[in-house]
Amino acid sequence: MKQIQAVILGASGYTGVELVRLLLQHPNVTISALVAESNAGKEMSELYSHLSHVALPILQKFDDITWGDVDVVFGCLPHATSQKLLASVPEHVKIIDLSADFRLRDTDVYEQWYGEHYAKDLQNDAVYGLSEIYPDAIKEARLVACPGCYPTSMLLPLIPILTAKQCCPASIIIDSKSGISGAGRSAKVDNLFTEIEGGVKAYGVGGHRHIAEVEQELSDAYGESVTATFTPQVVPMHRGILSTIYLGTDYDAKAIRKTLSDAYKGSPFVKICEEGYAPKTRDVVSTNQCWIGVFDDRVANRVIIISVIDNLIKGASGQAVQNMNLMFGLAEDMGLQATAVYP
Amino acid sequence: MKQIQAVILGASGYTGVELVRLLLQHPNVTISALVAESNAGKEMSELYSHLSHVALPILQKFDDITWGDVDVVFGCLPHATSQKLLASVPEHVKIIDLSADFRLRDTDVYEQWYGEHYAKDLQNDAVYGLSEIYPDAIKEARLVACPGCYPTSMLLPLIPILTAKQCCPASIIIDSKSGISGAGRSAKVDNLFTEIEGGVKAYGVGGHRHIAEVEQELSDAYGESVTATFTPQVVPMHRGILSTIYLGTDYDAKAIRKTLSDAYKGSPFVKICEEGYAPKTRDVVSTNQCWIGVFDDRVANRVIIISVIDNLIKGASGQAVQNMNLMFGLAEDMGLQATAVYP
Amino acid sequence: MKQIQAVILGASGYTGVELVRLLLQHPNVTISALVAESNAGKEMSELYSHLSHVALPILQKFDDITWGDVDVVFGCLPHATSQKLLASVPEHVKIIDLSADFRLRDTDVYEQWYGEHYAKDLQNDAVYGLSEIYPDAIKEARLVACPGCYPTSMLLPLIPILTAKQCCPASIIIDSKSGISGAGRSAKVDNLFTEIEGGVKAYGVGGHRHIAEVEQELSDAYGESVTATFTPQVVPMHRGILSTIYLGTDYDAKAIRKTLSDAYKGSPFVKICEEGYAPKTRDVVSTNQCWIGVFDDRVANRVIIISVIDNLIKGASGQAVQNMNLMFGLAEDMGLQATAVYP
Amino acid sequence: MKQIQAVILGASGYTGVELVRLLLQHPNVTISALVAESNAGKEMSELYSHLSHVALPILQKFDDITWGDVDVVFGCLPHATSQKLLASVPEHVKIIDLSADFRLRDTDVYEQWYGEHYAKDLQNDAVYGLSEIYPDAIKEARLVACPGCYPTSMLLPLIPILTAKQCCPASIIIDSKSGISGAGRSAKVDNLFTEIEGGVKAYGVGGHRHIAEVEQELSDAYGESVTATFTPQVVPMHRGILSTIYLGTDYDAKAIRKTLSDAYKGSPFVKICEEGYAPKTRDVVSTNQCWIGVFDDRVANRVIIISVIDNLIKGASGQAVQNMNLMFGLAEDMGLQATAVYP
Repeated sequence: MKQIQAVILGASGYTGVELVRLLLQHPNVTISALVAESNAGKEMSELYSHLSHVALPILQKFDDITWGDVDVVFGCLPHATSQKLLASVPEHVKIIDLSADFRLRDTDVYEQWYGEHYAKDLQNDAVYGLSEIYPDAIKEARLVACPGCYPTSMLLPLIPILTAKQCCPASIIIDSKSGISGAGRSAKVDNLFTEIEGGVKAYGVGGHRHIAEVEQELSDAYGESVTATFTPQVVPMHRGILSTIYLGTDYDAKAIRKTLSDAYKGSPFVKICEEGYAPKTRDVVSTNQCWIGVFDDRVANRVIIISVIDNLIKGASGQAVQNMNLMFGLAEDMGLQATAVYP
Repeated sequence: MKQIQAVILGASGYTGVELVRLLLQHPNVTISALVAESNAGKEMSELYSHLSHVALPILQKFDDITWGDVDVVFGCLPHATSQKLLASVPEHVKIIDLSADFRLRDTDVYEQWYGEHYAKDLQNDAVYGLSEIYPDAIKEARLVACPGCYPTSMLLPLIPILTAKQCCPASIIIDSKSGISGAGRSAKVDNLFTEIEGGVKAYGVGGHRHIAEVEQELSDAYGESVTATFTPQVVPMHRGILSTIYLGTDYDAKAIRKTLSDAYKGSPFVKICEEGYAPKTRDVVSTNQCWIGVFDDRVANRVIIISVIDNLIKGASGQAVQNMNLMFGLAEDMGLQATAVYP
Repeated sequence: MKQIQAVILGASGYTGVELVRLLLQHPNVTISALVAESNAGKEMSELYSHLSHVALPILQKFDDITWGDVDVVFGCLPHATSQKLLASVPEHVKIIDLSADFRLRDTDVYEQWYGEHYAKDLQNDAVYGLSEIYPDAIKEARLVACPGCYPTSMLLPLIPILTAKQCCPASIIIDSKSGISGAGRSAKVDNLFTEIEGGVKAYGVGGHRHIAEVEQELSDAYGESVTATFTPQVVPMHRGILSTIYLGTDYDAKAIRKTLSDAYKGSPFVKICEEGYAPKTRDVVSTNQCWIGVFDDRVANRVIIISVIDNLIKGASGQAVQNMNLMFGLAEDMGLQATAVYP
Repeated sequence: MKQIQAVILGASGYTGVELVRLLLQHPNVTISALVAESNAGKEMSELYSHLSHVALPILQKFDDITWGDVDVVFGCLPHATSQKLLASVPEHVKIIDLSADFRLRDTDVYEQWYGEHYAKDLQNDAVYGLSEIYPDAIKEARLVACPGCYPTSMLLPLIPILTAKQCCPASIIIDSKSGISGAGRSAKVDNLFTEIEGGVKAYGVGGHRHIAEVEQELSDAYGESVTATFTPQVVPMHRGILSTIYLGTDYDAKAIRKTLSDAYKGSPFVKICEEGYAPKTRDVVSTNQCWIGVFDDRVANRVIIISVIDNLIKGASGQAVQNMNLMFGLAEDMGLQATAVYP
């Protein structure tokens, strides 16, 4: 099989460099261009010394890409920027976007949370890239909008439960704990080692914008409008999200575990843990796995779900590669079989 | 004023050594004996090298204590052991216990969660040592049972709200994140650096035994039996608990903030944060503070509270010293005024 | 005794905020002004939320200081800035500077390493503020230039050894490991949690500018020009410096240990560890201590010294307070007796 | 090509589980048995939850191994145990041992440092497994004794320099900083998160037993007996060793860099960094790389070398796989091409 020629936009950020790592170990992909506007002309190794023993294309500007042989472009750009650039990608190139720009089907909702939408036409081509939920649409899509990291950790457990109408949607509370890499590589005092190490903090309490895509997907699954409570928290670790989800329900953990097990039967990446086991982030960090545990609470009619992913892999670059595999007819887990680096 | 002569039982654990640190800087206290059965005969500095420049009594056995001049004994022992030893402390000595042994007024409830109760008579003398809630009873008490670390972080915000009947008790969900020092100093593979660093995990999902004292206190405050959902989680940091509390309520954040501000007016240790600020553990780590933020959720009729403490100080040894101050007629914050070591 | 009125310049950096913490717990000092040019007009709590329950002066500009009652000014400014501002401090105010600006007696040497010297007159008043080595001069000084953090960790062990001519100066190699707080609070990608956590790195290999003051002091002690090798390394922790010092010598560890024990007899802050014990940073972090261990190497005629301090306390703000105590006739350890926060 | 059938002894330790990870991603190897005496009968996933989605042989006892089709056995056992078990491995099975048991050619030296040697005959078959230095002997060997983690980080830079007689052997000082995973997975108070996090400490000062194999190899390279100073230090991180090496020499950094570049030309795993770059552990953690930087010191006739590896990969399980590749005629880097997981 011919190698897939891939371009990465925004290669200098953490999701960009994680894509580089994953594509380097993918047997069917060649990285044909790396794009980073302000760092154009530099080697990746000037930004990431750990790559200085690897041959990689020099960083270049978007306008200098030669698109002829390119098969797929990955967008690792901030929102809004993504819309502007991806609108000018030639038709023959498939697009896998990791930003928030094409996740919300209703552009009005997008504009409530993120500001002006610059590529409304392209929005029509977009498929929400939660790989296990929409594999068929992803296979056919030209543009796949990869879910956010927090949403991935919540939606994989919640969608099958809501589809089966096994919980009361008004009761959903999601309390998430994330590593810091989700904040990206920009120089901010708040993200210095000295500010982050040794503490935990909440942010965006009562209204983080990732909830928009979560509510879109939950509403679709349930068939009615669903709102949900979501509190993100930052933990002093590089990677990993653990979402603790509280549900009001007439079903017990066993029934819900069965619903989830049935939904993800045969999936290489979603594992429903056996009764009594609460998955921890380090089970899945450095892998594309999502593990889910389901528990009866002491309080009647309440079930607690624990869901874990690596925010940079299943929550970003890994799911992007998984979607690429689907779009190009490869095995879903090609290049993504690594087990966790432990300890 | 004569120095208070204090004995510490279980001085070799983390709450014990934290008490040593706090009492060394307390102007009115002399440590007259340190007790650690299996380490009797050793210097503290053999267990804690950082204390090797400080003059401290040698570790001794409980049976070798000379009680004559002792004013107060601090119990930093595991549960059950605490009951057995404290029952034989002479009458003239006040007792401040940090274990779970005397926290539950109903010894049947104790026995459901912890096993046999060995000092039921002494239980009658015990006051639940949540300093801000029961200051008068603590001043008169012979035995104060200091609350657990998780319960302290929850009860300080919840008791005034339930007393004011400003939330629906059936709706209470508490999601807590704790540093590892709460697990103590015993040699367990699960608590090795290599197992803990870089990850977050939940444990006791659906039923951690700290909930028993929480439900006792919430029920008392509300005047009816209250059950609550509680999920503890371990974060890779030494100290600190952040509890995120979800409430169904007809009141908004502003009203609840007012209730809390009124309840803790004049308190040196409880701070209700201004609107919009989510306190983080590092605001209070290495201090006896408890800081509380209150937020309206996007979802109607739901309020989110963020509460932070240092689990070893306000959640254990610091609150014990605060109670001692109350019991001996000292200013409540004597020896406890330090601000956070930062960074 | 009248309270000492203190002003802190550069209060918004890490050494500034550490001074605030130490002075708040000092019984003889009142903070009368906090200066931070670009943050003038703000509350300290806007920069450091952990101080929001403490009454502190608002941040102001240097030009707005009312100097009348001020007794002492602490300079926590970057080098060069320090020289410019301190030159205009009124005569009646004592100066304790934490920058590199007045550490080098030879302004030509200063200019080799740091650039133009803007306050050469003031240099004549300056005493090198290594408290245990120059207590008499410090007591009389108007301006004390506090040593760098790395130099403090090296000079305390090395000066008595060189004074006693117990090692070959050409053989001195110092390998230091430091926490990140030494890098300050500026927003740099290199100091993000995601870049620092989980790794160790060397920097300034073969020529870090702290070596200038080290060589000045070692040469003075030895009576001849001394050069030394120094490699700084950054470790993923907030605080602490561990310096491993290699010496060629005809003396054994026992003899050198005796030299050091004699030199620091009665010192409240320097502890020479017993044979066989290698002090670790956590023995001294959050204290003003310096602990020193001395070891015979397997290789003949070589001795290894391990020295540890808290870089922000004994290596900066704590030593500054110690010097203030000396300058104002207070007990040397006033306000500095805390033992380590552990764990 | 037929799959290599591999057995891992001591699969339950950190080097064992790291070998499992590396062999799972090696295209030419099948894990045919996992041995762990005290855990025999358990699944690996009971010890390492992160492996619970992978099919692996159940843990078994050594005596229950069916050796017929086995091609190679990896020993990840404590020293002494290794000698006893490996002596009874059938002749047709190649042995790759990760313990210290067969590294020292002179069994008297072994007994000085480690106690009785139980397999002196087998010692005659052993080749020291520093892959880049002894590739030819490794290809022919039946038993390869993989170097220790610290020695690997030192010997790769030092052997070519000593072979070229470009330094004074009496001057060698090695100051190493290591992550904690080198201490293994046994339950010790000293290795708890609460004891390790936030601090750095030295141990074995003046005489760590890894120096024995280092001196063996340096003496061989130089042609005369060489002794060296070595100080190991523990840093709060999972993985990585950074060795800072001080050399007295008449050569400058450029000359030494050339010697090293020539020695490792074409090597897939050893990189000599360009002038001015000090490699950091995170450049190589989670890879089989060793990166080396060479610097002129300010002090005349002294050169400083910085060398970094991942202690569990190039310092243990990765080098073991590299040696297997050599022994079985595979490309040296087969299964070992991963770049660093960053951040």
